[in-house]
Amino acid sequence: MKDLKIILMGFGAVGKGVAEAISIKKDNIKDKFDVNLKLVAVADSSSSAISGDGLDEKILIETKEKEGTLSKYPDFGCDINGLDVLNQVDYDLLVEATPTNIDDGEPAKSLTIKAFESGKDVVTSNKGHLALFFSEMIAIADKNNAEFKYEASVGGAMPIINFAEETLPSSNISSIVGILNGTTNYILSRMTTEGSSYKNTLEESQQLGIAETDPTQDVEGIDAACKTVILANSIFKVPATYSDVKVEGISKITSEAIELAKKEGYLIKLIAEVSKEGLSVSPRLVKNNSPYAIEGTLNMATIRTDLADEVTVVGKGAGSIETASAMLTDIINIIKKKY
Amino acid sequence: MKDLKIILMGFGAVGKGVAEAISIKKDNIKDKFDVNLKLVAVADSSSSAISGDGLDEKILIETKEKEGTLSKYPDFGCDINGLDVLNQVDYDLLVEATPTNIDDGEPAKSLTIKAFESGKDVVTSNKGHLALFFSEMIAIADKNNAEFKYEASVGGAMPIINFAEETLPSSNISSIVGILNGTTNYILSRMTTEGSSYKNTLEESQQLGIAETDPTQDVEGIDAACKTVILANSIFKVPATYSDVKVEGISKITSEAIELAKKEGYLIKLIAEVSKEGLSVSPRLVKNNSPYAIEGTLNMATIRTDLADEVTVVGKGAGSIETASAMLTDIINIIKKKY
Repeated sequence: MKDLKIILMGFGAVGKGVAEAISIKKDNIKDKFDVNLKLVAVADSSSSAISGDGLDEKILIETKEKEGTLSKYPDFGCDINGLDVLNQVDYDLLVEATPTNIDDGEPAKSLTIKAFESGKDVVTSNKGHLALFFSEMIAIADKNNAEFKYEASVGGAMPIINFAEETLPSSNISSIVGILNGTTNYILSRMTTEGSSYKNTLEESQQLGIAETDPTQDVEGIDAACKTVILANSIFKVPATYSDVKVEGISKITSEAIELAKKEGYLIKLIAEVSKEGLSVSPRLVKNNSPYAIEGTLNMATIRTDLADEVTVVGKGAGSIETASAMLTDIINIIKKKY
Repeated sequence: MKDLKIILMGFGAVGKGVAEAISIKKDNIKDKFDVNLKLVAVADSSSSAISGDGLDEKILIETKEKEGTLSKYPDFGCDINGLDVLNQVDYDLLVEATPTNIDDGEPAKSLTIKAFESGKDVVTSNKGHLALFFSEMIAIADKNNAEFKYEASVGGAMPIINFAEETLPSSNISSIVGILNGTTNYILSRMTTEGSSYKNTLEESQQLGIAETDPTQDVEGIDAACKTVILANSIFKVPATYSDVKVEGISKITSEAIELAKKEGYLIKLIAEVSKEGLSVSPRLVKNNSPYAIEGTLNMATIRTDLADEVTVVGKGAGSIETASAMLTDIINIIKKKY
């Protein structure tokens, strides 16, 4: 039985989901791969819990929820944080779940580079450093023979990167067109079923916790644009960055436009596209009862191939345990390859 | 560079698709895996073409289309057929694309067992032997250390078996619910959009070549039932056979029932389900603009999991090159594992 020593950076919704997913699945992974997943350090934005013997997933979640900080983890809580954790702890894999930062990609960028330079593998749910510095990040990983996996960064629990690589290896992919942001899909779906205005629907979504207090990244298409950059780099091997995406959000969509589309059997959706024509995110008409006609916070992607024609995947684009499941799939793929 | 010597049995739509897919992708596979796909024998129902140096995929397709028989393949056509081909030819992999036979699974059953007993791997698009004798076939494959792959048998180009194994390894699957027959989905979709009767829509589908002259296997749910058996055995490891499926077809669906559903925002679809409750195929109501609301001949399947919630795949359930693409994916997975 080998130990796989994990540092988990970031302990918000996704980070807690990772701890929970490990807690649920670690016995299963022991049985199947003879590998013991061991959380040796977990850090939030200002503190951490560190133990070479492994931390308890349930106590981690309880401590964070009751005390608001991991520094109160019994016996092993402390104020060590950020890069210092990577410097001081012996580990094999960094699971990076800090918040996305589209300005400079930090702290994900520095943490990830530090891990690669120590020869460690990285699994991330973060979009910022990937959308801004994909080629650089991959080059550093390759140079250090480190694995770099980021399935959760695009579709949450909707598989797209592993799907394209593992499930469609016989076909060449010519385009990916999809709905990659659940918040805007929820808003547009509600505007369609309720006939309500953009402004009212956004406010309602904020009250429900589906849209953030500052909804800019979602409603202006920034989040979806980051995801097209990650798809372009990972699946099409095109060295695109965020500035290459033509982006238009949904804030100008009126209930009248939606009503007009509806009468003709169409819906308005925020569609992301990666193809030879380039990268774009914009509101478009899609047909009723087509694979694009999904409702609520779901994500979907249609992959156009040469042999298999069009293949579509649909799944939950967000959610704590759902996003963590994609990160656990990445961990399992690293185990299969290296352990 | 290693040769992968292939015998292709069955040279109808799917068999020809396999030859075409190999022709398109063999250079790519050489580059990527250092393996040379070589068709050393191809057989239709009464003749074959055999050459240890490899047959030309384009000449195979031309000969079949112009002459109606492979016995006219220049220099290498002959009347050897069925098991005799497997007995006389040196090969590594049987690609089995004979027509599905739900009475006794032949000739697929005998051909496949013969290949396994010689230690050869098998890729199939056939449902009959799997729906009737899944456990037996797997046991013989395992005993002889042979690989047995059957992705194309369930969803055509819609990935489901490899998808569940390769893309969702972190989650336990509790149920699969989907539309696994394109012909019936086409008929029900047309009845919905046109308001036409079952009888007229079936006749129209037969004229278009979408439904067969004897449509029983499709419209009575037999085809979809075979597919649920394959999913139950392969993904849930339940030793089910065809007689375990509760089957109800679409021939009693009236345009009035469809109209009634439509008024309430629902569609009637032929839904296949594999879950703890057992195996079933029956017409059911699904919501408009849900992942089940696909139109035309598409197939779809929603996989319910413990961590990733529901994940859906949609793709072409039939078609010559599309089905062949799934078989080529199986071949590539065998290459990755063994070559």
